[in-house]
Amino acid sequence: MAERVTALAAGHFPSLELHFHPHCYLAAGHFAGSDADRAAAFLEIANDAAFDALWFGRGGYGSGRIAERVLPQLGAAARSKTYLGYSDAGVLLAGLYARGFPGIVHGPMPADINRTGGEGAVLRALAYLASRSPDVLEPSLRPSDKVAAFNLMTFSQLIGTPLQPDLAGHVLMLEEVSEYMYRIDRSLFHVTSNPAIRRVAGIRLGRCSAIPANDPDFGRTEVEVVRHWCEASGIPYLGRADIGHDVDNKIVPFGAFQTA
Amino acid sequence: MAERVTALAAGHFPSLELHFHPHCYLAAGHFAGSDADRAAAFLEIANDAAFDALWFGRGGYGSGRIAERVLPQLGAAARSKTYLGYSDAGVLLAGLYARGFPGIVHGPMPADINRTGGEGAVLRALAYLASRSPDVLEPSLRPSDKVAAFNLMTFSQLIGTPLQPDLAGHVLMLEEVSEYMYRIDRSLFHVTSNPAIRRVAGIRLGRCSAIPANDPDFGRTEVEVVRHWCEASGIPYLGRADIGHDVDNKIVPFGAFQTA
Repeated sequence: MAERVTALAAGHFPSLELHFHPHCYLAAGHFAGSDADRAAAFLEIANDAAFDALWFGRGGYGSGRIAERVLPQLGAAARSKTYLGYSDAGVLLAGLYARGFPGIVHGPMPADINRTGGEGAVLRALAYLASRSPDVLEPSLRPSDKVAAFNLMTFSQLIGTPLQPDLAGHVLMLEEVSEYMYRIDRSLFHVTSNPAIRRVAGIRLGRCSAIPANDPDFGRTEVEVVRHWCEASGIPYLGRADIGHDVDNKIVPFGAFQTA
Repeated sequence: MAERVTALAAGHFPSLELHFHPHCYLAAGHFAGSDADRAAAFLEIANDAAFDALWFGRGGYGSGRIAERVLPQLGAAARSKTYLGYSDAGVLLAGLYARGFPGIVHGPMPADINRTGGEGAVLRALAYLASRSPDVLEPSLRPSDKVAAFNLMTFSQLIGTPLQPDLAGHVLMLEEVSEYMYRIDRSLFHVTSNPAIRRVAGIRLGRCSAIPANDPDFGRTEVEVVRHWCEASGIPYLGRADIGHDVDNKIVPFGAFQTA
């Protein structure tokens, strides 16, 4: 996977130099290395001014296990870096944004190359890293908007913790994958019941894919569900967002939108 | 089910008079009636001084959809009532306890009669309702302890909302069912990362049952997982609690322990 992504980058964006940290090849049960190994790797890259960006390799649960130990150890070099990823990486994206880091970005990761058509997703991320190409941004982004994007369940599981960023005035984009519709409903109940989240400018719903069948059927679509919770909480529902656990997942730089 | 529970009560506790609200027999997709029907039924029983207790009929997702609309409409008769249930009903138990209601109780529900050996669970709840029998209480309870008990995921999904009660100084008991071990880990990350939860006296772990197999295996038991998060958060781990989604589920009255 690393070789394919490196070859893709070399062919399309020769100005980019990719470095895959050795921890990416570790395995410790569920995780790519022990918590200590993964925390050390994160800090090594984040705190090294020789790297312009830290690109999360893949999702899957694990960021929450290192967040509290790594965030207080980030220095000046870490603050000026771009952090790109989505899904479970959203835990660290949230914590970094909560600490005022300016370069937080929701978008494809190297592991997306394993999807059918995944080269397009990886090229989109590479184009953002190489040139901040406006062509790869989520199309609803407007220069006047502040925005943030998360996987819904990942975001729900950091509500009420120090990792929750202040998203007052932000457009909040949420996508989901492989969750029952009743759980999508429950997580939106949770997220929209948080008083600070009620100060967002509005919610846009990304794609909710691979929803398992339930018996009885929940009887509501994901749009009906998000409309229900937006109405109940007084949060404007702003329509769909072009993000999701798929190859069409677009780039969402957190905060105020900046053109190249 | 209602007939079996009613017959059981009549045979063992003739002083109890059970009333199954007609909404229990409604169905609206996933739910036992529309949100409006369920909210109206809850308020009708809760606000009626002729009833000593409100016994939740069963779990399954749905309490969160009515919590914000019913809690502000509860009067004096509601405050002096016993509320008994667990699982998803924990959303309302939490919200009621957050508002200072004194009679909040985690324990078996009528639907438990459908489990093999379920009559024992239902009889335990009936014994509590009839006489506050100390024999049916969770055995670690001590007169000096304040305590609360929840399903872990249900509790996680109300962290950071107005439904989250102040559990400072409480023993917090958490049980889980049908969740992957990585999700148990993630929910414990979430719950123990909340600053207010870090003021609990300690956590006791109830049974974690029907954990789906994962590939690769998570490589940690639920006790190892809760010990990890207690250590990381500075919360004392106090051992196991005799609660769970099963027929052995014991009674946990919230707050300071009171003998009959």
